[in-house]
Amino acid sequence: MSATAVSNLGHVPSTVNPDLQIERDNSSLTPYISEITFLLDGGRKGTEKRRQIERRLFSEPLFRDCAIERVYKSRDEVFARGTERSVRLFTLKEEHNWTEDEFGIALQVLNHQYTLGLHNVMFVPGIERLATEQQKAKWLPLAKNYQIIGTYAQTELGHGTYLQGLETTATYDATTEEFVLNTPKVTSIKWWPGALGKSVNFAIILATLVIDGKKHGMHPFLTQLRSMEDHKPLPGIKVGDIGPKLSFDVIDNGYLILNNVRIPRENMLMKNAQVSREGRFTSRGPSKANYSAMVLVRVNIVNWCYHMLCNSSTIIVRYSAVRRQSKLNPSEQENKILDYQTQQYKVFPCLASAYALFFVSKMLKNRYLRIYAEIMKGNFKNLPEIHCQSAGLKALAAEMTVELMEISRQACGGHGYLAASSLGAAVNTAKSFVTVEGENTVLYLQVARYLMKRFAAAVSGEILSGSTDYLNLDPSRYTCPLKSPRDCRNVTLLCEVYKFRAFRMIAKAAEKLQRDIEVGKKQRDAMNDNLVQLVRAAQAHMMYVMVVDYREAMNQLQTTLPVSNALNNLQIFFTVFNVVKNAGDFLETESIGLSQIDWLKDTEVEMLAAIRPDAVSLVDAFDIHDLTHGSVLGCYDGNVYERMLKSTENEPLNQSDVHYSYHQHLKPFLQRNKNSKL
Amino acid sequence: MSATAVSNLGHVPSTVNPDLQIERDNSSLTPYISEITFLLDGGRKGTEKRRQIERRLFSEPLFRDCAIERVYKSRDEVFARGTERSVRLFTLKEEHNWTEDEFGIALQVLNHQYTLGLHNVMFVPGIERLATEQQKAKWLPLAKNYQIIGTYAQTELGHGTYLQGLETTATYDATTEEFVLNTPKVTSIKWWPGALGKSVNFAIILATLVIDGKKHGMHPFLTQLRSMEDHKPLPGIKVGDIGPKLSFDVIDNGYLILNNVRIPRENMLMKNAQVSREGRFTSRGPSKANYSAMVLVRVNIVNWCYHMLCNSSTIIVRYSAVRRQSKLNPSEQENKILDYQTQQYKVFPCLASAYALFFVSKMLKNRYLRIYAEIMKGNFKNLPEIHCQSAGLKALAAEMTVELMEISRQACGGHGYLAASSLGAAVNTAKSFVTVEGENTVLYLQVARYLMKRFAAAVSGEILSGSTDYLNLDPSRYTCPLKSPRDCRNVTLLCEVYKFRAFRMIAKAAEKLQRDIEVGKKQRDAMNDNLVQLVRAAQAHMMYVMVVDYREAMNQLQTTLPVSNALNNLQIFFTVFNVVKNAGDFLETESIGLSQIDWLKDTEVEMLAAIRPDAVSLVDAFDIHDLTHGSVLGCYDGNVYERMLKSTENEPLNQSDVHYSYHQHLKPFLQRNKNSKL
Repeated sequence: MSATAVSNLGHVPSTVNPDLQIERDNSSLTPYISEITFLLDGGRKGTEKRRQIERRLFSEPLFRDCAIERVYKSRDEVFARGTERSVRLFTLKEEHNWTEDEFGIALQVLNHQYTLGLHNVMFVPGIERLATEQQKAKWLPLAKNYQIIGTYAQTELGHGTYLQGLETTATYDATTEEFVLNTPKVTSIKWWPGALGKSVNFAIILATLVIDGKKHGMHPFLTQLRSMEDHKPLPGIKVGDIGPKLSFDVIDNGYLILNNVRIPRENMLMKNAQVSREGRFTSRGPSKANYSAMVLVRVNIVNWCYHMLCNSSTIIVRYSAVRRQSKLNPSEQENKILDYQTQQYKVFPCLASAYALFFVSKMLKNRYLRIYAEIMKGNFKNLPEIHCQSAGLKALAAEMTVELMEISRQACGGHGYLAASSLGAAVNTAKSFVTVEGENTVLYLQVARYLMKRFAAAVSGEILSGSTDYLNLDPSRYTCPLKSPRDCRNVTLLCEVYKFRAFRMIAKAAEKLQRDIEVGKKQRDAMNDNLVQLVRAAQAHMMYVMVVDYREAMNQLQTTLPVSNALNNLQIFFTVFNVVKNAGDFLETESIGLSQIDWLKDTEVEMLAAIRPDAVSLVDAFDIHDLTHGSVLGCYDGNVYERMLKSTENEPLNQSDVHYSYHQHLKPFLQRNKNSKL
Repeated sequence: MSATAVSNLGHVPSTVNPDLQIERDNSSLTPYISEITFLLDGGRKGTEKRRQIERRLFSEPLFRDCAIERVYKSRDEVFARGTERSVRLFTLKEEHNWTEDEFGIALQVLNHQYTLGLHNVMFVPGIERLATEQQKAKWLPLAKNYQIIGTYAQTELGHGTYLQGLETTATYDATTEEFVLNTPKVTSIKWWPGALGKSVNFAIILATLVIDGKKHGMHPFLTQLRSMEDHKPLPGIKVGDIGPKLSFDVIDNGYLILNNVRIPRENMLMKNAQVSREGRFTSRGPSKANYSAMVLVRVNIVNWCYHMLCNSSTIIVRYSAVRRQSKLNPSEQENKILDYQTQQYKVFPCLASAYALFFVSKMLKNRYLRIYAEIMKGNFKNLPEIHCQSAGLKALAAEMTVELMEISRQACGGHGYLAASSLGAAVNTAKSFVTVEGENTVLYLQVARYLMKRFAAAVSGEILSGSTDYLNLDPSRYTCPLKSPRDCRNVTLLCEVYKFRAFRMIAKAAEKLQRDIEVGKKQRDAMNDNLVQLVRAAQAHMMYVMVVDYREAMNQLQTTLPVSNALNNLQIFFTVFNVVKNAGDFLETESIGLSQIDWLKDTEVEMLAAIRPDAVSLVDAFDIHDLTHGSVLGCYDGNVYERMLKSTENEPLNQSDVHYSYHQHLKPFLQRNKNSKL
């Protein structure tokens, strides 16, 4: 039991909490932890590289203090330190010749707590994608050497997902050979772009091109916003921060008001469309390859979700192995909360989903790279498929991650409500994934539209390939493959169940749409009247894709037996858990029957018990640095109470014994009619 | 469309956004809004009183600036203002002779943004409940006149729910007739009590009484913590704030370390147990009536959930009626997002649940008052029933509220992620309800144990009364009462379905427990192996209680036809929605069949369409002051974009054009190798 003498306040023992040590001593997986770590890092070298980067970064207070600053410092300070960290990170990247992948590891180690991310993620790639060779030659060196700092400004105060609705204008003035940029209405003010508020001096601005009063669609305009001398906004420009958010205080998401801002004609990025000196508009048509940029961002979010779940499950599993509460046996000491079935049912879905998303995200990334290579060769055949998969898996992974992380947070009781647990801030960060880079519902509906098309093709006799190939199946030939409780541990059989559920839900939605149209509804009304059902069908499809990818990736593994046993248990649990969670759908589509749901629920709790002994080892294998998760509850040594107590030293209110508000407000009130006999 | 000229920056129109006005013009419910408002306020006089309190409070910047301060000020400032507000609130209460109910209205109007709440909620009632008459005569006047400020200190760093585990000791020293208080271990440090950190000078401390080395259980000790002269902690006491939390920055939840702190014998609150001068321990036994205090707090949380849902649905419905995105018809302007079925499916559950919890919370409060009156007369017969209902409804209401508020927040897209939307902070506040005053899972398990006992009684032939009377039913006589789609709008029939589902889940859990014990498992192991199932059974029971209470309360209403129609629609939607949401349970227990689930899903989307025209009126009826919800997205005038823009004026980063971090960090970096030709 963690209990040093109180005289040692603020002291954290250098030993491991015995309650955590015994978990490691007793898990048969312990000797194999590094095998799993290497697997997750892509090999032993990957692990070594990551640890090297961790050591490098955490040798500096600037990086070590990340998590603490986020909790206890003001917005101003958090932002300033974020800027300092950005600059230092870019410098280290150059010094150490980090590849983009290695730089990505550094960001993940720092939980992305830096300010100028958009420069590398959106500004430089934006120029690469949208500029002519001549423009690239001019701007890329400046951007890549950080002589200019930029962002990508698309979203407006009144406009998000629906790009055709954007209202910012770039009007060509042939007399001066300039574009005149304006945000003519409140709703057209640029709003949200990262680092726009105080940091960048350049932006790629998406605006409607207007020539001689005629609109020519949305185009990108490279625009200087602030002086290179003193960083002041240029004439006609009003720019600032949009205010605090649920997370990401380190980033100055900004607004931008443009009032007759003039830029040279050459600053329109003209790879895909051109305006001549005389004001003649030409277009090569929007390049389909542009899609692939957004696809990549979504692929990366799925991976980010994986890392978020690793952090959360590390914290909550370790805490649950140390926290004791109530007694199962009155004659013994209080039990670890990890011993309770209800706690396991909150914690292990998070743990299992972390592993699931590792494999699923890897499969998705590989698929993306393969299809991207095809696209680069001019073969767009698989673009709709990868678009659907990246959109749908981003939505599903984000949804899952937020939900499971919050359940984990709640599973830490009151202490999970403390900022020092880092769990609340992590949930708030993860919540952004639901909205950014395509709002989840919008993405599910894109998937649903794709599925409706594929289903129609299947009905008309086309033989489908890819993730929707099952739409060719003959539902009358389905019988539930789970014939006994034992079958519920067979992931391949379970995948069949997922497949049939998705098929039935897609077919049902398609048939309902068809019926609505046949009775005279307009296509658009029929769609709107069935959106809820369409979203559900898309979720069912994506869930199928997820369990199949997970199974495929696991099938490719070569591991020692203890490792494969442990990973198998997680996979079975994950796959069963998501049937039980959506039991209504599975029963309704008759993918399973009443006996099966009973067996599955039994299997589910059996798997909880199977995972229990290795739970700590399975999070140790993530090998997350204590300064990365930044939680007093989740450190490797398990000294949670000492760390909680020590964390109070950072709290501003504790910088004096008596707070100034006492003298100002409380004292006069208490002494109003002082006749106390104390 | 909301779009003033950009030259009018920071200006919010005094007119109502036409997109919102047209909703009010077109809703047939508009003329009846005040009828609903009066209903919710408990009559016209209640509404007038509330508005009077609102006017009084919001005439002062101290109260008007609540929401803005919470977003943009530092912890230090937020806390200091919270103290100032507490003092002013207590003064106003005296000046205006507010009753406790009226004071409660003031708190709800201010969203509970004040510091010293625990004094009135726990400290004064603690003395009233735990002290002898003589002790009350001494301490109550001091406490009620705010000459001393106190809190209630029970929870410890290592101990929450399980009271027997608490480790703080109060050892009697007969030589000096004093108790010596100690927190001997890190895990025994008091942790969490509100206002403990910096504010209070007294606390009721729960500690294990030790006399001559013998333990006599937990007892309350009234202890002075800080000097009445200079507010400094007294000798042997270390006290401070536990640091930032997910919400409630205004409150200094504290820690307390006691090192041989001596208090007079008379400071043990001795109503229920006594220690004589000589150190003789006597006890009247723990009073069952003590339970009723915790019951009341839980009853109040259900009511608080109702108010939280009102705030959230007001914000999100108004925003959804103003925000436009994408087009259903290409030749028209972009649609209001409230027109999309998927948006309605996110928003209306929140709206309907707000109404549901109004009625359910009222029924619960009335039941509590009735049973409390019985208890005061020494009749404890209904105590287990009200204990179960308050625990279970607190858990269910909290769970529902957090989930629905978060869905609403997500339904606002990116703007729902802004602090100025107030939605994120509200969700984070609501999350505390899941944990405080009995962690939800622990409460569900208390309900489940009660249900297991009642079920056993029913099996043994006892005729039950109260909410569990249905456990006497004969399941073989059940047939699903929903015989046609039309029946799915009949709430009484739907209640039968909920009842049967609860019955079957309780029976199944009980039988499984029985089987496990019969095959030789110990009672405690059998319990632990079925916790997940037991929680589900408890949830099913509480959901049944909720829909029945809702129906009963609605049946007692007398309203005009338009109002009853609108409220009926909400009730039907709520009742159907929660079947569909838990379809797995209902199908698995054969409470409904496959036809029924189809009909219910159809009914569900029909009700979305039925609610749509009155949605704005239904939130207008909550009559929530703009300064109460504090959201730029939810104001009565619907000028969301102008308010968002104006809110940026409060952001610290915007207090200068160029942030200081530019000069410190960014400028040197940008100019490293300056050879720009810009």
